[in-house]
Amino acid sequence: MKITVLTVFPDSFNSFLQMPVIKRAIDRKICEIEIVDIKHYADGCFRKIDDSPFGGGVGMILRCQPIVDALHEKAFTNSLKIMLSPKGKQYDQMQARELSTAEHIVLLCGHYEGIDARVEKYFDRQISIGDYILTGGEIAAEVIIDSIVRLLKGVLRDSVTVDESYENGLLEYPQYTRPADFNGDRVPDILLSGNHKRIEDWRYEKSVELTKQLRPDLFERYVAAKENK
Amino acid sequence: MKITVLTVFPDSFNSFLQMPVIKRAIDRKICEIEIVDIKHYADGCFRKIDDSPFGGGVGMILRCQPIVDALHEKAFTNSLKIMLSPKGKQYDQMQARELSTAEHIVLLCGHYEGIDARVEKYFDRQISIGDYILTGGEIAAEVIIDSIVRLLKGVLRDSVTVDESYENGLLEYPQYTRPADFNGDRVPDILLSGNHKRIEDWRYEKSVELTKQLRPDLFERYVAAKENK
Repeated sequence: MKITVLTVFPDSFNSFLQMPVIKRAIDRKICEIEIVDIKHYADGCFRKIDDSPFGGGVGMILRCQPIVDALHEKAFTNSLKIMLSPKGKQYDQMQARELSTAEHIVLLCGHYEGIDARVEKYFDRQISIGDYILTGGEIAAEVIIDSIVRLLKGVLRDSVTVDESYENGLLEYPQYTRPADFNGDRVPDILLSGNHKRIEDWRYEKSVELTKQLRPDLFERYVAAKENK
Repeated sequence: MKITVLTVFPDSFNSFLQMPVIKRAIDRKICEIEIVDIKHYADGCFRKIDDSPFGGGVGMILRCQPIVDALHEKAFTNSLKIMLSPKGKQYDQMQARELSTAEHIVLLCGHYEGIDARVEKYFDRQISIGDYILTGGEIAAEVIIDSIVRLLKGVLRDSVTVDESYENGLLEYPQYTRPADFNGDRVPDILLSGNHKRIEDWRYEKSVELTKQLRPDLFERYVAAKENK
């Protein structure tokens, strides 16, 4: 698949593209990631990308023209065009699964005080990664890309993504590694028993217990989904 | 304030620390950001940071010892010690406001399949930035740091953070900038009227309308909060 990012801070992706899992996906040609500088599309001698808001107010608003022109050049008929925005639908693992099947995704990172509202109609959807405010959409784009790329076939071992939190609707069970005794704190005996069936049952129970306790909302959805099967 | 990040991928923060707002906060000595490589704390000749899970399963689990030793060296009595984890409380703007008043925050980034569950007791809380799975906690740490740093006095102009989405419990009203007509798409006349009182009213109405339509959950909370005042 291909992911195109429209941003005014292309350099902010440098380290991200070197992260082991992302780099592996790129090197194995499983995913192409294209970082596009919106500034290159700004018309006029000054290549102005933003301007003050109509009606007054502080901060600068990203102009329509550079964004729409960049989109016209970079997006195709099959491209899924996404704006990162606090107004968007809350991102979750189900959306990550869905996006990971797309052929081409375009992600627009907002910045400054906002984006001219008239660009919205050029996009297919808006996504928010959570109810908090970031300086820009760049980190949000990295969240989306990371969550998608690790699901692509050939990036991680196939079995890795199955047991994780959210994937089956439950939080993951607690994990332990050596030593069996850390400062007097011992690993649960059952995990040292070698009885795989009992270990599996224990892990499932712990998942249920943790989810009930920490995320009753997730647990409700899990029960509802199970009943509908 | 000071933020310490415990990570096995310190280089992944290089570009982030160069982002304009973060760099400004560091240069102005408003916030110190310390990136600590957990590997430096691993004991034994091989400085092994992870090992296979007890009870079987794929992937590697981060060991207790390097994390706990790094924490002992880097955290103080007043430090707020936070694990980034899918099991954590969902992060939101209210938590960002709260964390921005802390003296020192320590953020532990998980990686690989997980972290030995016995480290949890050494931390004050767990935070999740959303219901999706990331390769590691590094991007989540960047989300938290970015959301906090922009709230610190002297980083952005004081008035900037007031009108934003979530801050007053509503999504932000639509913003527009020049030209008034973009490909036949005109800015709402009211914003060109110069009548500041009417513009303010229009913006409030739009905020309410957008929030009702796109985020009924936020709107409910907004109404409840208003009634309690």
